[in-house]
Formats: sequence, C-alpha cells, structure tokens
Amino acid sequence: MIEVGINGYGTIGKRVADAVDNQPDMCIVGVSKRTPDHEADTAIDRGFELYAPDSETEVTFTAHDLPVAGTVETLIADSDIVIDATPAGVGAENAPRYERTETPVVFQGGEDATIAPTSFCARSNYEETVGQTATRVVSCNTTGLARLLSPLDDQFGVESVDCTLIRRGGDPTQSDRGPINDIVPDPVTVPSHHAPDLRTVLPSVDVMTKGVTVPATLMHLHSLTVCLDGEPTADTVTTCLDNESRIELVASAHGRDSCADLRESAHDRGRQRGDVWENCVWAESITVDGQQLSLLQAVHQQADVVPENVDAIRALASATDAQTSRQLTNDALGVGLDSPIA
Amino acid sequence: MIEVGINGYGTIGKRVADAVDNQPDMCIVGVSKRTPDHEADTAIDRGFELYAPDSETEVTFTAHDLPVAGTVETLIADSDIVIDATPAGVGAENAPRYERTETPVVFQGGEDATIAPTSFCARSNYEETVGQTATRVVSCNTTGLARLLSPLDDQFGVESVDCTLIRRGGDPTQSDRGPINDIVPDPVTVPSHHAPDLRTVLPSVDVMTKGVTVPATLMHLHSLTVCLDGEPTADTVTTCLDNESRIELVASAHGRDSCADLRESAHDRGRQRGDVWENCVWAESITVDGQQLSLLQAVHQQADVVPENVDAIRALASATDAQTSRQLTNDALGVGLDSPIA
Repeated sequence: MIEVGINGYGTIGKRVADAVDNQPDMCIVGVSKRTPDHEADTAIDRGFELYAPDSETEVTFTAHDLPVAGTVETLIADSDIVIDATPAGVGAENAPRYERTETPVVFQGGEDATIAPTSFCARSNYEETVGQTATRVVSCNTTGLARLLSPLDDQFGVESVDCTLIRRGGDPTQSDRGPINDIVPDPVTVPSHHAPDLRTVLPSVDVMTKGVTVPATLMHLHSLTVCLDGEPTADTVTTCLDNESRIELVASAHGRDSCADLRESAHDRGRQRGDVWENCVWAESITVDGQQLSLLQAVHQQADVVPENVDAIRALASATDAQTSRQLTNDALGVGLDSPIA
Repeated sequence: MIEVGINGYGTIGKRVADAVDNQPDMCIVGVSKRTPDHEADTAIDRGFELYAPDSETEVTFTAHDLPVAGTVETLIADSDIVIDATPAGVGAENAPRYERTETPVVFQGGEDATIAPTSFCARSNYEETVGQTATRVVSCNTTGLARLLSPLDDQFGVESVDCTLIRRGGDPTQSDRGPINDIVPDPVTVPSHHAPDLRTVLPSVDVMTKGVTVPATLMHLHSLTVCLDGEPTADTVTTCLDNESRIELVASAHGRDSCADLRESAHDRGRQRGDVWENCVWAESITVDGQQLSLLQAVHQQADVVPENVDAIRALASATDAQTSRQLTNDALGVGLDSPIA
C-alpha cells in the first residue's frame, strides 16, 4: 500500500483524498486543513486523520472539538507520497518541507512549471515522472487539452491547434468572483498561459490558446480547431476519441445540450459531488474539413485532475506502468458517464 | 430628402428610426408598431407618426390615446424606402407588400439570404446594392465579422478564418431567455450559420465559425484566428484596423477590460441607449505569428447594424457612393468611441 498524505483539503484535496481512499493499492495517512470549518468535519466523518499547519492552529481545531493527529510536518514525514493541494503559490512555499524529508510530492497546476522536474498528464507523459521526486499535475484546462490532443497526435499527427477557452468565472462556492452579466477577455493578451502550459506535457504540439471568462460556475468549454497531418473522416476521429477512457462522447441529441446537462447526468448517476472526471466532447460538433478538425468539449474544473493526481502517485512511487495505473484509477472511480451506477 | 418608413419599431427599428432622423438627407415618414406599449409612447414623443398593422389594431391604439396616422399599407405606399425591422421571419411574410407598391426595402439578418437580391455590409459590398429593389443587412455577428475581415482582406489578403463566437444569451429585456449559469454549444453542429452568412457579403473568404452561448446580455465577443496571405507585423495590422471608422481599438490598459466597460463608455459619452455601433477590437489581443493573426473583438448586437441600415437606404436609393454614405452616416451618428461628446 502506498501511504498518501493530503496537504490541503479544499476543492481538489478533498476530491483526491476520496479517490485515493478508493484505490486498492493506496491508503490515506491523513489530511491537513488550515481552518476548523465544515470541510474539516467532513474529513473527520470520512475517517481521515486531521493535521494542522502548526501547533498554534492545532489549538483552534481542538477548541472546535476537532481531534488533531499532529502538524503537517508529521503528516509529511509519515507519508510515502504527499499530494500538495494547497492554494496556488503555497505549494512553492511548501517545497522545502518535502525536500527536507525527501518525501515525493504531487503539486497542482496553479504552481509554476519549474516547481518540479516534470509536469504530468497520465495520457501524455506518465513515464517521464516514474521515479522522480516531484511532479506537477497540469491545470484543469491543460489536462483537458492534453487528454484530447495526445490520442489525436498518436493516431493522426497534430500539426497545430487553435483553442478558445470559454472559462467559468469561479467554482460554485467562490461567491467573491465574477463576472456577472459580462464576457471578459481573460487574459486580454494572446496566447493565454494554457499554450505554454500544454507544452510542458506535449512539447511537440504547436498550440495557440485564447481565454474568455463568462458568468458560469459549472465547467469550462473549449472550442477547438486542430490541423491534423492526415485527412481522416469525422467517423475515424470519433472512433479514436471513443477509445479513450477519459474522453466521453456526449450527444446533444441525447439531451446533453450544455455543461449543466453534463453535471446533472453525473449527479443522476450517483457520482459524489456530481463530479465529471472525463473530457466531454460533443459528438455532433466533430467536423473534419480536409486536415481541419473542429470540435467542442467541456471540462469540469474541480474534477478532471483527480484521476491524474492518483496516477501521478503511482508514477512517483514507480508502482506500475501508465496503462495499468490508468485502468486501476478508472475502475476504482467508475470512470465513464454511462458506466453502471455504483 | 429620402423619405423612410420604419416597419417594426422594436430593438432595431427604434434605433434605425433615430439614426435616420439624424441624417441630413433623410426623413422619417412614420413607424409601425403592433402593440400600444411604452415604445409606442416613445415614438409619438419623438415626433414620429405611428402606423398600425391594420384597421383593427388601429382601434386598440386609439383606445390607448395613441394617435394613428394609418395602416402599414399606407406607410409603405408613402415611403421612398422601407426598413423592415419586424421579427425574424415576418420580413418574408411582408415581402409581397413591398413588391406590390414597388417600394425598395431593407430587410434584417434574421431573414433568409434569398429574401433579397443582395445581402449588405457597407464596408464589404455597398456597390452591389446600388439601384436594387431590396437588400438584407446581415446579422450583428456577421456584420462584425465582415467589417473586420474586409480591410484585412483588402490590405493583406485573407486565406482563411477561424472564429469562435461567444454569444450573449439575449438582449437585456429578453427575460424569457437563458442560459443562467451555463455555457451552451449553440449550435452544437459545426460550422454555425455565421460562416455561410458571411459568404453572402464576402464570398471569397474561407471561414469557419463555432458558436457558444453564455449568461450575458451586453455584447457578443469573437475570438478570431485569421490566416493572412502575408506576414505583417502586429503594428501594421493595428494601423490597418485603426484606419477603419467602424472599428474601435480599445485598450484593457485604458480600463476597457470587458463588454460591460465598453457599454459603460458609450453611456458615459452620452450615447443614446449606450449604443456601440463600432466593432471593438482589444488592442492588446492583436498578435501575429507568421501568417496567423489572433485577436478578440466585441460587437453590440442591438447597435452595430444601425449604421449599415442607414447606408443600405442610400445604396437602394442610388443616392451616393459607399465612401460618401459611410462618412455621412458616421458624422451624423458621431461614430468613434472617443469622438467629442455630443
């Protein structure tokens, strides 16, 4: 069993904790939390040991009747591998702690690419991370792009990519964010940071990205044009994507018209938090004109990196190869929007 | 003076009526309205004669103390040229009425392209409409694309265009429309109708369009990649666009960060209804990599076709050439977001 510590039990950390807890070859040492809030209650109720940032914070937790197993230093020392799911930038502050104890660590996409020897997407470059001391799972949007482009590049060759990312303004609980009734160039400069970020896991692909933020909280939506080396039919491309376990072909004709429909499906299928781990590609949008492939896909910003974090643990632990890890992760989570209801 | 009748005094009709009323070479015969609502009050208060669809409706207007000058048949017969700004599809029903009286007519972009011998964007193909019996001003999004691509094609040559349209869900008063907190492929099939529509005014340009609708009401936003024949610098492209009277270069650095900022500017500058007649291209977004030009622009769906309708009147009336008409229209309206406050 790989013993995993979760440093940061927020949007990503709590999801990865549950996913790790469900894996046959992993267990949770504990989770760390800065504030004694309802998420801390949930951690305790799920049976996870709670760790505080320092002995001072420990006191505020015990004052709230929340038992604390120790400080983050102990959590790190007692873990085989740590998931650092702290807010963007805090991972960089934490880096020396992991180095001190020589604990391999998975950072998140909010950190700069230089934080770790590799950046990670299981479908694109799992092998590069095997045996490393640290890696960084790329952000939700970059993960969505890498998962889509890797199989296209493998099967057809990708000459260039042009993607407009229609970005959700914030997660549902981020009430301090906007926009309200506006469409915002974000960033106004071109390309957005997604293009260079994608190159950290798929260096060979020539990619242009532009970002626009809108008043929605459920998912991001990508509008893509991909110039392929060959001229496949739309059916061949559809089959290629359909063979990918973390790509779901969704049909507007089947009532999955929008991001809200995709999340509703996930809730209906009994998924915890209504999470959608897969890229959702609209089948009707897949269009090929010569070498130009066009399509629309949605990615769930809170969830798509979760299986990647699990795979990153196995890569750092040199536990299995990519194919085996991805299969283990998928099976344990129940990846596939139409897979049997748990 | 060209005597103009406005058939349909709604979102577009009321704006075109005011714009026509401000032209030195045009006057308003009257406007037609189906319902005796607050917009009818405004028409009367602006000094426009009110026409009812038929004698039956005339009674409901007089019952609301709204004086009616006659029916639409009379309005059409008494006008040199009619603007048909009725809801999409109603223009087609009205077409035989204009043919009967041989009154030249300007239809709107909601109608099928086959409704008139030409489709119209003043910057792209004014001359084709000179002396015709009817034309169709293309829709707000298509107008925005044609205005941008025509000068680029003239100066550099355009090989191909890829555009994602992030569409506003509805106009501010369309409370029955959505989406709320969602991002919706609209349409889910590729290309959207904008690509074939653009070819009605710019047949030589190879264009791909994809549409996505979001919870916003203020403007549409276009994310464009244009493959040019040459390899100009970003500065050369910027100068080319800056020379266009109906393209406004806006700067995020100058506080115009979003669609809401653009509308706020228009309100601040004293523009009626806060209308933005110009394409607003974000200066910071203009990026050239080899032949590939990328940029972001916003278009105000209620307003950008207004100057085009005015020019279409002069084209049908064979009144002036394109350059003269556009200048007259611009001067009368005060086109240019930084032009002196009226």
